[in-house]
Amino acid sequence: MYQIPRGTRDITPEEMQKRRYVEEVMRSTFNTFGYREIQTPTFETLELFTAKSGETIVEELYSFTDKGGRELALRPELTAPVIRFYVDKLQMEPKPLKLFYFGNCYRYDRPQKGRYREFKQAGCEIIGTDTSEAYAELIAMAYNILKKVGLKNLELNIGELNILSSIFKRFNLSKDQQKYLTPLIDKSLFEDVFVALKDFGIKNEDANALTEILQTSDIKKIENFIKDGDAAKKELTELKKIIDLLEKSLGIKNYKIKMSIVRGLDYYKGLVFEIEAPSLGAEKQLCGGGAYELIRLFGGKETPTAGFAIGFDRTILALESEGFKFPTYRLDVFVIPVNDDMIKKSLEITQNLRNQGVSADLDLLRRGISKSLKYASSINAKKAIIVGPKELEQDKVTIRDMNTGKQEMVKIKDITQIVK
Amino acid sequence: MYQIPRGTRDITPEEMQKRRYVEEVMRSTFNTFGYREIQTPTFETLELFTAKSGETIVEELYSFTDKGGRELALRPELTAPVIRFYVDKLQMEPKPLKLFYFGNCYRYDRPQKGRYREFKQAGCEIIGTDTSEAYAELIAMAYNILKKVGLKNLELNIGELNILSSIFKRFNLSKDQQKYLTPLIDKSLFEDVFVALKDFGIKNEDANALTEILQTSDIKKIENFIKDGDAAKKELTELKKIIDLLEKSLGIKNYKIKMSIVRGLDYYKGLVFEIEAPSLGAEKQLCGGGAYELIRLFGGKETPTAGFAIGFDRTILALESEGFKFPTYRLDVFVIPVNDDMIKKSLEITQNLRNQGVSADLDLLRRGISKSLKYASSINAKKAIIVGPKELEQDKVTIRDMNTGKQEMVKIKDITQIVK
Repeated sequence: MYQIPRGTRDITPEEMQKRRYVEEVMRSTFNTFGYREIQTPTFETLELFTAKSGETIVEELYSFTDKGGRELALRPELTAPVIRFYVDKLQMEPKPLKLFYFGNCYRYDRPQKGRYREFKQAGCEIIGTDTSEAYAELIAMAYNILKKVGLKNLELNIGELNILSSIFKRFNLSKDQQKYLTPLIDKSLFEDVFVALKDFGIKNEDANALTEILQTSDIKKIENFIKDGDAAKKELTELKKIIDLLEKSLGIKNYKIKMSIVRGLDYYKGLVFEIEAPSLGAEKQLCGGGAYELIRLFGGKETPTAGFAIGFDRTILALESEGFKFPTYRLDVFVIPVNDDMIKKSLEITQNLRNQGVSADLDLLRRGISKSLKYASSINAKKAIIVGPKELEQDKVTIRDMNTGKQEMVKIKDITQIVK
Repeated sequence: MYQIPRGTRDITPEEMQKRRYVEEVMRSTFNTFGYREIQTPTFETLELFTAKSGETIVEELYSFTDKGGRELALRPELTAPVIRFYVDKLQMEPKPLKLFYFGNCYRYDRPQKGRYREFKQAGCEIIGTDTSEAYAELIAMAYNILKKVGLKNLELNIGELNILSSIFKRFNLSKDQQKYLTPLIDKSLFEDVFVALKDFGIKNEDANALTEILQTSDIKKIENFIKDGDAAKKELTELKKIIDLLEKSLGIKNYKIKMSIVRGLDYYKGLVFEIEAPSLGAEKQLCGGGAYELIRLFGGKETPTAGFAIGFDRTILALESEGFKFPTYRLDVFVIPVNDDMIKKSLEITQNLRNQGVSADLDLLRRGISKSLKYASSINAKKAIIVGPKELEQDKVTIRDMNTGKQEMVKIKDITQIVK
């Protein structure tokens, strides 16, 4: 027996139905927002990812050398490939360019519950605008997508990296000191942040104030904290505009300001946001996004970019943990020839139904009525059609409702109408 | 600038629409035949593919060693992974098991027109039945799928490997001799086949007869050629049943018997078929399939299996070469705020439309009416909504038909009804 590779999985028909449902809802929501779907290759040159995320990412990649000596890697995420695509072929498209995509991504890390080495992401980029309405719309879309798939309990957190940087600057924190603080802030280890600030020579009072600001969700407090001279003043005004549009034009009132969102990545600039599903416990983040700069790094003409990624697998886990009832697919009709002489006519009836768009299957094992009815029931068919010689003489068949067990004889020409 | 890996491609929104259309039609046709969708990982253990296809396949694979020292390969095809999945987890499911799938596959060969190193396949397997009605249905489904996507000109060829083997046996051709003949037959090099047969010591008359049988599509001639004692007698009877069902129950009269289909693969047994699109010229095969044996090799309990694969990319090329008009997607509405004060209201109107399932976008660059109308036209929007202060005083907006240029003022509350 051959094993499935560690950290990967097979997807059964039942799970696949859930995935198709979620993908369809996401796709149609992206479409209603004017986004258009694209696709990039499953692997890219290794240097694309190291350029974006640094050499350390190689540790987490499935990288390999192809037979032509090229260093390639299975993509760990989709933003870098999409921006490469943009720089290569889409720079002349009318702006803003709204792109979305689904794709499998790959990370070589320890498999855990809900964390696979091959996992699916949905995501999008908006290229060519940095207006507050563009950002508000982006956040609203992420939130709407997760609501539309059926999630009830979502937490939306919004942060602003430029404000954070500006505050760091005011306290003269060096790049290295900021780098040390970032993961602590990301993990909400505020006591450790406080200790570190003190170690960096920040006054008790200031360290206290800064640590508090990182934890507040009160925009007034942040406003008071920011001094007139700060570069953050402008960013805060923009953030307030975004929030105002979110609340008043887009109907999203259920959000929190969270200055401690750092997203740990150098290329994010300005607005950042996260959406979490509290029902998932520790691993609850479904969506992360914001404004970022990557185009110039990839050789293109810099233009504003923002986007987000949604963890597809985790979205399904969140729906399951909320007890969401996924739509289930049922076969419309299962056709049963009572003996071998009825096979021809049964196949014909089945095919006619299929031609009308009815999903229909038939007994392909010549196993007789009772075993076939059992099979029809095991595959959850709605109706069974029994094709027997006596009924056929009158151009009729027996239709059985698989829920109630009720049977009736009907003319063959009326079947489609009855089962539809 | 970073390059896309050789032999791979980026898919633009326009191409992606075609692909989604084709995938949707294929999926819904699979569903109407009672098939259910599954998925397997993008990579598998290398030995899975060498077990199926021999060590020589390694040449054509993207294979690599992961950080845990496992030899893996990007899948070159989907049948081996699906049968591995079946043996591992689905053996106890009620039979027949009807499975279909879409997946990207990878082959390290010379990139050519319509041949990429990453390519998409659609395919299916039916596990647990070998009745003539099962095979007839399988062929009909393949044919129906390609018809339903919109192809007009298709050639369906049906062969039978056991009949071919039996004929070989009658002339005492050794395994090695058969192996030598197979690629010649596959490429329709019948003169070379004749020369080879003569070299193998076959009489002129017999070599002639055999070469002729390989080229006939007349089942009567094949019937006459097969001797009473041949094992092929039974297979021919089955083949005739399949053809009879295809013609009379499934309405497919447009097929050819082709004894020279060999499919070049050891694991095919019995029925084989191919569907070609003549519009594609030399590389015209869209679909190949048949009955095969693989389960026992993969450690499962042997049970009949059959299936087919459709080249997804080539199906799209065939549609294009037939001049097929793919359904095009158009944005329903593009909303234009005439000045910055109108942004809030514009965003609200846009969001309301989206909530009603209307696809709507709005100007996110504050560029005024005429530039926005130009943009709306460039993205092929159906209607534009212009939001201005005077109209807003009366709770109205201007709706412009982007095809005719006709404009009218309408109440905000009536927008959805008008644009839907």
